[in-house]
Amino acid sequence: MAVPLLNCDMGESFGNYSLGLDSEVMPYVDCANIACGFHASDPHVMRRTVRLAVEHGVRVGAHPAYPDLMGFGRRSMACSPAEVEDLVLYQVGALAGICQAEGTSIRYVKPHGALYNDMARDAELLRAVMRAVRSFDPNLPLMLMATADPEPSRRLAEEMDMAIWFETFADRAYDAKGHLVSRRLPGAVHHDQATIVAQAVSLARGEPLEASDGTLLQLPCDTLCVHGDNPESVAAVRAIRDAFQALETA
Amino acid sequence: MAVPLLNCDMGESFGNYSLGLDSEVMPYVDCANIACGFHASDPHVMRRTVRLAVEHGVRVGAHPAYPDLMGFGRRSMACSPAEVEDLVLYQVGALAGICQAEGTSIRYVKPHGALYNDMARDAELLRAVMRAVRSFDPNLPLMLMATADPEPSRRLAEEMDMAIWFETFADRAYDAKGHLVSRRLPGAVHHDQATIVAQAVSLARGEPLEASDGTLLQLPCDTLCVHGDNPESVAAVRAIRDAFQALETA
Amino acid sequence: MAVPLLNCDMGESFGNYSLGLDSEVMPYVDCANIACGFHASDPHVMRRTVRLAVEHGVRVGAHPAYPDLMGFGRRSMACSPAEVEDLVLYQVGALAGICQAEGTSIRYVKPHGALYNDMARDAELLRAVMRAVRSFDPNLPLMLMATADPEPSRRLAEEMDMAIWFETFADRAYDAKGHLVSRRLPGAVHHDQATIVAQAVSLARGEPLEASDGTLLQLPCDTLCVHGDNPESVAAVRAIRDAFQALETA
Amino acid sequence: MAVPLLNCDMGESFGNYSLGLDSEVMPYVDCANIACGFHASDPHVMRRTVRLAVEHGVRVGAHPAYPDLMGFGRRSMACSPAEVEDLVLYQVGALAGICQAEGTSIRYVKPHGALYNDMARDAELLRAVMRAVRSFDPNLPLMLMATADPEPSRRLAEEMDMAIWFETFADRAYDAKGHLVSRRLPGAVHHDQATIVAQAVSLARGEPLEASDGTLLQLPCDTLCVHGDNPESVAAVRAIRDAFQALETA
Repeated sequence: MAVPLLNCDMGESFGNYSLGLDSEVMPYVDCANIACGFHASDPHVMRRTVRLAVEHGVRVGAHPAYPDLMGFGRRSMACSPAEVEDLVLYQVGALAGICQAEGTSIRYVKPHGALYNDMARDAELLRAVMRAVRSFDPNLPLMLMATADPEPSRRLAEEMDMAIWFETFADRAYDAKGHLVSRRLPGAVHHDQATIVAQAVSLARGEPLEASDGTLLQLPCDTLCVHGDNPESVAAVRAIRDAFQALETA
Repeated sequence: MAVPLLNCDMGESFGNYSLGLDSEVMPYVDCANIACGFHASDPHVMRRTVRLAVEHGVRVGAHPAYPDLMGFGRRSMACSPAEVEDLVLYQVGALAGICQAEGTSIRYVKPHGALYNDMARDAELLRAVMRAVRSFDPNLPLMLMATADPEPSRRLAEEMDMAIWFETFADRAYDAKGHLVSRRLPGAVHHDQATIVAQAVSLARGEPLEASDGTLLQLPCDTLCVHGDNPESVAAVRAIRDAFQALETA
Repeated sequence: MAVPLLNCDMGESFGNYSLGLDSEVMPYVDCANIACGFHASDPHVMRRTVRLAVEHGVRVGAHPAYPDLMGFGRRSMACSPAEVEDLVLYQVGALAGICQAEGTSIRYVKPHGALYNDMARDAELLRAVMRAVRSFDPNLPLMLMATADPEPSRRLAEEMDMAIWFETFADRAYDAKGHLVSRRLPGAVHHDQATIVAQAVSLARGEPLEASDGTLLQLPCDTLCVHGDNPESVAAVRAIRDAFQALETA
Repeated sequence: MAVPLLNCDMGESFGNYSLGLDSEVMPYVDCANIACGFHASDPHVMRRTVRLAVEHGVRVGAHPAYPDLMGFGRRSMACSPAEVEDLVLYQVGALAGICQAEGTSIRYVKPHGALYNDMARDAELLRAVMRAVRSFDPNLPLMLMATADPEPSRRLAEEMDMAIWFETFADRAYDAKGHLVSRRLPGAVHHDQATIVAQAVSLARGEPLEASDGTLLQLPCDTLCVHGDNPESVAAVRAIRDAFQALETA
């Protein structure tokens, strides 16, 4: 069977600052979401990260964000849709320039942090991001957070003539609507590797998850977000990769 | 006869700050050097400026700089050649992303301010900029300051398999080596429109200029830098354009 | 009679960018709200602006903002109260450093733009700003937007043992609750100088204004915000100053 | 006998990025050089670092730099002396604002990285930094790199009516003029703890070092720079502290 693509945030170092175990996790993922300089990264880090992705045959994705290096793009900013459209275009283009020099090209776009969350709540922002992606390259898919009701996003994507990829998380609990349980609540994040792998496999098989209220939750899953922050998360990625290989050959 | 292209720095506004009479000068130039966000401009300003260039059929050029918004890219920074290569790629790519959305593409690259001057003095920096431009698009010409001895630059360009365009100034005095006379010296800048137009016409015709020491100076001139900072400079651009049209039809 | 202090945003230039007619308006105001580098200004501009204020005997106020130069501090950012407290302290301190070199000191604090609006809506943010100001100097007043019901702010200021100054606008329409009518609505901004001066005089005399729904609105007014953006607004400031001098000597 | 003060760069984290083992090394030093947001740090990190210094009774010093976060302040920038004066004042003031809230104050100033090196080479820059420090607080000492000939710096300090502290390094080789041997040369950095402690003790006792050409080198030493980058450097600081305590009680 076909399994979801594993995507991972990469290239989050900046100048003298190192972040993430990019070279350790790169061999096990399909898609590298590369920061574009607004919330993290710089031209030199981007170059090195694109080169690493190319070496491992990993697809490069643009990971644009609000212009907030100090807040790592995690603070919502009241940018207008037109501002968001242009800052996404700028960042996607900048990464594409780096890709050009490394003989590759951008394969998808995944907005980062607060921008990712804001566009899930605000259709005008989502349209703005879609306009940016489509006008850069009409064939680029946009990653969106999966929810229990993907139809509105599908209809919007169809209206905009865009491809979308729904993204799920193996290490996070979901509520009945398919939203991530807030990190401030107990049980929001799975730390046990067996639980994480089991959720990844369920999502890959198209089986429902148990939501935080005990109901069953069906989520679309084109891609699964994994993490390379520390040795534990890298180990979890390897375990998911092994489980997926078993699924593929089954 | 063929006349040099008129190029002008554009898109130097930033956020709430306005700079330059872009819409007034755009109708009279051939090439718009558009700032890419490191010394001036932002994604929104870049979008608006590219659109204006497209409306007037003006070629878009990338105008990358050192990362120094506070200093407007005019302060030399001790960036390594590898850093310079990547920050040029980043900025050229970012502008290319904006161009993509406006149905156009980058036609040349002209580094800005201190970077432009530093690469004229430091062959390693110049090679780094050339690597960036060539790896982005091997057909893009790079603008370089014309000097009395263009051969070293021509040989380097040939070695790198790059096109270069030599740039001259109509409103600046030159010394005998073809370097601009420092602005701190008297007579460095021509303010009289007739003098400016006369120097432009001499350069276009391939006639020698009189250098600051009275000797004759022959400069290669593929393109002439003009300015849209204020109404006087815009008037000078119009006068040069009129004089060039007379040359073309002569 | 005592009249409200006239306060004006100043020092909003940045690097190569000029903004505001600071030297024209400085002679007519009491208080200069000086930008601190996060939404506008830089160390050099701050120095020049403090010097200008000192020359005219104008009180220097700190004008801290969210860290958003591209958005001129006008975009709300989801900073935590603890982040806001520290970024206000940083900016107030930076301006105080400049003041020290010019033989003066900060006399009050007025947050800028989105931060000013956000703290009017969010008591936790307001407390954070108050903690910052009080811990820098317990005698510094904080400027707050006047509303029809100033009691909650007064109680909070008393609880925090802080002085506050209520600020009003002569060129803006108010709704019945004492909030500014949105700039997107017709009649939100007064452009006629006579209307502006009349509203300033009413506010100075403690007379009620007519709110946008026709009801009478009583606003506390310790200080009146004026503008130095263009010649018209500077002329309005001079006219308000003249009217206030007549009130004072009456 | 009196021993030199141990100073260490601190507060170099930024937003989501962590750098340095500040809490591990703080107990063993006398002086914390705290980054001020231009090459590293942010208001939140500065607050936390000042609080940590206060808890350990460590003197707070301002560590201002060129405005170059991406380059960590290590790239020389062609700022004018007047620009340098104002950007030092700004940063010193910003840290002083944070100190105010933590009940302490700045005790000295040590410029960072490229600015520190540039002012050692360029007397105009050094004068500019001195003007900034003196106008902020005429009693604040300025740290300078010790050299074999400290007289010019002493004369300048006397002329400016400033206190200076000469700084030496225990883990770096010196040439005969008392300049640090370039890191690109072999033997430039001592990695062996015994060598580092021995050099620290020699400097503390006022004994000459052996320069890289074998000659004897006498250096003034008011303070010794130590590092908290990694466990090895922290261990070296503890060993120097132990050796200094033995000297003090001897």
